[in-house]
Amino acid sequence: MKQTTLWADFVVRNYEVDVHNRASIVTIANYLQEAAGQHADHLEIGVRDLLKHDWTWVLTRLKIEMQHFPAQQEVIKVLTYPIGFDKYFVYRNFILFNAQEEEIGRAQSTWAVMDIQARKMIGVPEIITSISLPTDPPFVEQLKGRVAKIKAPQYQESFKVRWFDLDTNNHTNNAYYLQWVIESLPEEVLKNKQLASVDIMYRMETVWKDEIIGKAESTDDQSFVHQLVRQSDQKELAQAATTWR
Amino acid sequence: MKQTTLWADFVVRNYEVDVHNRASIVTIANYLQEAAGQHADHLEIGVRDLLKHDWTWVLTRLKIEMQHFPAQQEVIKVLTYPIGFDKYFVYRNFILFNAQEEEIGRAQSTWAVMDIQARKMIGVPEIITSISLPTDPPFVEQLKGRVAKIKAPQYQESFKVRWFDLDTNNHTNNAYYLQWVIESLPEEVLKNKQLASVDIMYRMETVWKDEIIGKAESTDDQSFVHQLVRQSDQKELAQAATTWR
Repeated sequence: MKQTTLWADFVVRNYEVDVHNRASIVTIANYLQEAAGQHADHLEIGVRDLLKHDWTWVLTRLKIEMQHFPAQQEVIKVLTYPIGFDKYFVYRNFILFNAQEEEIGRAQSTWAVMDIQARKMIGVPEIITSISLPTDPPFVEQLKGRVAKIKAPQYQESFKVRWFDLDTNNHTNNAYYLQWVIESLPEEVLKNKQLASVDIMYRMETVWKDEIIGKAESTDDQSFVHQLVRQSDQKELAQAATTWR
Repeated sequence: MKQTTLWADFVVRNYEVDVHNRASIVTIANYLQEAAGQHADHLEIGVRDLLKHDWTWVLTRLKIEMQHFPAQQEVIKVLTYPIGFDKYFVYRNFILFNAQEEEIGRAQSTWAVMDIQARKMIGVPEIITSISLPTDPPFVEQLKGRVAKIKAPQYQESFKVRWFDLDTNNHTNNAYYLQWVIESLPEEVLKNKQLASVDIMYRMETVWKDEIIGKAESTDDQSFVHQLVRQSDQKELAQAATTWR
C-alpha cells in the first residue's frame, strides 16, 4: 500500500544558512524539492519512473509562505502530498513544522509532464492520475490565478548560469531562479527585511553560461513583482512576486 | 568525555548532484564542512565557542581525493578528527565511506584562528590545543608543501559573488571557491572527465558582488593548476591543483 502523504525531516546544516544565520529560501526550496522527489519515487512516479516513458517532471509554479526561518541545527519536518490533477497539471502541497511540530510555513506547487523527445508538455499520464490522493489532508488550497506582471522595473541585476547550477538534465535547478529573483532586490531589503512569501511561475529553461537579467519593482512597502529575462534573446524565464516583513 | 572522532552520515539529495547525477565536489566539500562543524561544536571549539573570544575559524587549505562520487540517495559516512596543531594551524582529516563501509575518498584540511576585531590570524589558542587527539586514527598524513603556481593561464572564466554564496560572516562560503576553480576548466573536461582530486590554498576572503577571475593551466593530460583572482585589484584569492581521470 502506497502512502498518500510523506514526511521528510531535515536538520539545517552550517552551509545552508544565509547572512542572517537562518535557512535561506533556496535551502527551503531545495528541501521541498527533495521531499517531493522522495514521495514521487515512493509512488513510482519519480523522475526515474517517468524517464522509462521518455517523460520528465517540470515545475511550473511554486509558492512558499514562511512564518519562521529556522537557524543552524534546527529541525524542519516537511509534510507533503499531491492534492489533485487537471488535464495538464499536478498539484502538490507542503506544510513545514519545527521540532515541536508547530507550523513554520507552507507551500504549494504545480507540475507538468514533458515529453523529452518532443520537448513539449503532455496531458498528465494515467500512471500519475491513477495514484491515490490523501483523503483528509490538512491543507488543500490550490494555486489559482496568475502572478502580477512587472510594469516599470526599478531594480536590475545580472547573473550567469554556473556549471554547478545545472541538474542532471543539463538545465538550471529551479531553486536558482528563486535565488536570482531575491538577489535582484536592493541591498537594504536583503539586509534588513525578512522574506514572508514568494510565488514564482516558471516559463523557460536555461542552460550553462546563459546571462540572466533579474528585474524588480516595488508594489508597496513590503511587496515586489519580479521578472527574469535571458539577455541574449530577451525571453521571459520567470515571473514572481515577493512579500517581506 | 568528549569524542576524539566524529561520524556524520549524509544521504545524497536530489538537488546535490551534478550533470553526471553524482554528488558534486561542492556537495562533498559542504559535507566535510558540516562534519567538521559538528565535531568542533561537540569539542566546544565551534564557531559559537570561538565567537565568545571574538575569534573565528578560517579554512586555509583543503585537499580532497575521491575514488567514487555517490549517486542520488546513496549514503556517505564521513569520519573526521583533528590530527594535530602547530603554532598557527590546526589539522583535521576526513575519510569518506559508502553504506557498505568501503572507502570512497579522503580529505585533509588546515585551519587557522582569526581575531575578528584585529582581522588577523592569532596563534592557536589554548582552548583548542587542550583538546584530546585520537590515539590511533586511521589516516594521519598531514598536508605539507605548497600547491604548484600557475605560469601561463590557458583558460579563463569570470564569476560574480552572489548574495546566497555568503555565509553568516558576510563572506563567501569556501565551497564556492572550489566551484569556481572547477568551472574555469573547458567544457570538454567538465563533461567527459571525472575529478580525482582537488587541493586548494585559500588566500583572501571575498564579499558580495566581487568579480572573480578563474584561471587554469594544464600541466599534463590529467592535471591542472588554477588561480582565483579578484578583478578589481588583481589580488590572488586562492591557488589550486586538480587531477582528473
